[in-house]
Amino acid sequence: MPTIKKTKKKINAAILIIGNEILSGRTQDANVLFISNWLNVNCGISVQEVRIIPDIEKKIIYNVLDLSKKFNYVFTTGGIGPTHDDITSLSVSRAFKAKYKFNNEAYEILKKYYGVKNFNNGRKKMAKMPAGASLIYNPSSAAPGFKISNVFCLPGVPSILKSMVNNLKTFLIEGLVTISSTFNLKTVESNIAYDLENLQNKFLKKVDIGSYPSFKLGKVSVAVVLRSQNEKQLKSCEKKLIKIIKAKKIKLFKNN
Amino acid sequence: MPTIKKTKKKINAAILIIGNEILSGRTQDANVLFISNWLNVNCGISVQEVRIIPDIEKKIIYNVLDLSKKFNYVFTTGGIGPTHDDITSLSVSRAFKAKYKFNNEAYEILKKYYGVKNFNNGRKKMAKMPAGASLIYNPSSAAPGFKISNVFCLPGVPSILKSMVNNLKTFLIEGLVTISSTFNLKTVESNIAYDLENLQNKFLKKVDIGSYPSFKLGKVSVAVVLRSQNEKQLKSCEKKLIKIIKAKKIKLFKNN
Repeated sequence: MPTIKKTKKKINAAILIIGNEILSGRTQDANVLFISNWLNVNCGISVQEVRIIPDIEKKIIYNVLDLSKKFNYVFTTGGIGPTHDDITSLSVSRAFKAKYKFNNEAYEILKKYYGVKNFNNGRKKMAKMPAGASLIYNPSSAAPGFKISNVFCLPGVPSILKSMVNNLKTFLIEGLVTISSTFNLKTVESNIAYDLENLQNKFLKKVDIGSYPSFKLGKVSVAVVLRSQNEKQLKSCEKKLIKIIKAKKIKLFKNN
Repeated sequence: MPTIKKTKKKINAAILIIGNEILSGRTQDANVLFISNWLNVNCGISVQEVRIIPDIEKKIIYNVLDLSKKFNYVFTTGGIGPTHDDITSLSVSRAFKAKYKFNNEAYEILKKYYGVKNFNNGRKKMAKMPAGASLIYNPSSAAPGFKISNVFCLPGVPSILKSMVNNLKTFLIEGLVTISSTFNLKTVESNIAYDLENLQNKFLKKVDIGSYPSFKLGKVSVAVVLRSQNEKQLKSCEKKLIKIIKAKKIKLFKNN
């Protein structure tokens, strides 16, 4: 197992989803949920912004550079396959003014995987990336992702992406993990809005309190989610929330 | 039924998802898929960018104004409920330098819905919005969304949002609908990459050709999606694609 560097600072990230199929409403994105959870639980990295953009070079370049400046890490998904609409590697090369060329190691990995006879131009294209990029190995379908500067380029297919994330760890500095606690209340938001606001004011910048209403099968409920990087503060906030719930005689559903 | 203004131009839009619960990976977003499809099919409006941001006033203001300048329409979701973390209405007011105040009509709607006795401060808060905003009526839970400038603020709960979108139509100018055609091929992308690139070059700016690989239960397939605002061009591109498929002896799965 690779050792991971740790810090007691907050480390943040952005996700850039590149793909017309998500924007057009053809495909339900599944990568944001997975990457956000994985980064927080495994690396203490908190995703602070997501953008979904089309397969257009100018837009990829603009957003990669913009997010790269604003956040510690950027994770892109999509556009590193063999077809004409896969333009992430080329665009990221241009963003960082790096040559777009064959990576020798990626070329050998793919040649071995497909066999010399079947190593056609589409497949070779997947070995092209910015000069100087580091590979992110792909245990399920060989074609690697890559890292350049603080930007990590991953595939769009969720099952392949999931198989690769453990190979990201060597590149990342681990920050503070956000822990959370969820209370599912049998009530409506406006019944507890005043108390939650007071509670939030008591724990300003220490615990983040979210309130999420749900209306399923005619049943109303509110999930109150406490999130913090400090366990002691979280426990203290939990206690105060339980007091409120009891005082208001609100019933709890089984927790998430 | 309201009549809708039409244009033969392309009309674009952005979606701004406001909510820590989506960013943190707690909740799977469902609104992007729905809004994108609804806008295209019902209004000929094409979503060109999505951003997901936290419940932070500065970020809401920056992104609302940035997207409002770049796109014909902006649709925000989330943050218009009764609790302390619902800060979209206040932030959008500040973005447009409009007073954040009670909307008389919204106030009356909510007072009637909850009854004078139960019309507490949390519920009253849902009637506060930028001065001069137009209401987007909510047939399922009364609390309206609103429109200011080219920005439409909608709730985050998908079932409520869905019930409201028909009330958006009066505000929108209808553009060209994008029609699409999907071919599910029993092959891998690299087998058709070269032919698809040639085909795309023939239909540059007329038909957008996307190639989306899938690996489910050990079965590989590729969905080739043709998208265009011109039916004649789409049909012509379809014919040429079918020729390629036949020449390569690729089997078709049942279409989407």
